[in-house]
Amino acid sequence: MALTDTDRSTKLKTLLDDGWAMVEGGRDAIHKDFTFSDFNQAFGFMTRVALKADKMDHHPEWFNVYNKVQITLSTHDVGGLSQRDITLATFIEQVAK
Amino acid sequence: MALTDTDRSTKLKTLLDDGWAMVEGGRDAIHKDFTFSDFNQAFGFMTRVALKADKMDHHPEWFNVYNKVQITLSTHDVGGLSQRDITLATFIEQVAK
Repeated sequence: MALTDTDRSTKLKTLLDDGWAMVEGGRDAIHKDFTFSDFNQAFGFMTRVALKADKMDHHPEWFNVYNKVQITLSTHDVGGLSQRDITLATFIEQVAK
Repeated sequence: MALTDTDRSTKLKTLLDDGWAMVEGGRDAIHKDFTFSDFNQAFGFMTRVALKADKMDHHPEWFNVYNKVQITLSTHDVGGLSQRDITLATFIEQVAK
């Protein structure tokens, strides 16, 4: 289900306050870069997110090199952000903290 | 240790024959795109590569979305391809098959 205007002014705003940003170029997607102490920490984080993502059947676009992980979230089915992106991003924030 | 000309005409050539390609734009790095049946298979592959990479202390640059994994290998210390890239790429080929 696509985000409502209310969702955007509440749930999405919370994520934007936490450092997520809208993807530039008009795509309705959010992204955030994470930096860890080393690859072990970065890939451990990715593994926790992967298990959650596969359980949700909602998968991130992500790039990793050494201790850095760049994540982009959007929902293909709705052509933009959905409640599932909010759920996954919120989980990611919990794991990253 | 950077690759010698002999390494490039033998070991690197084997990888290029297996579908690896030089990165465009002049960077001395190789890349390859892998497609799996689903995210479980893709991330399982990444996990096997991650364990090897961390043991080697030689880490890939990689992007994943759902069943696709794009990998780039180069060695920062030598400013280009090294024997470690050959070793890691060869391992990746074994895992992907």
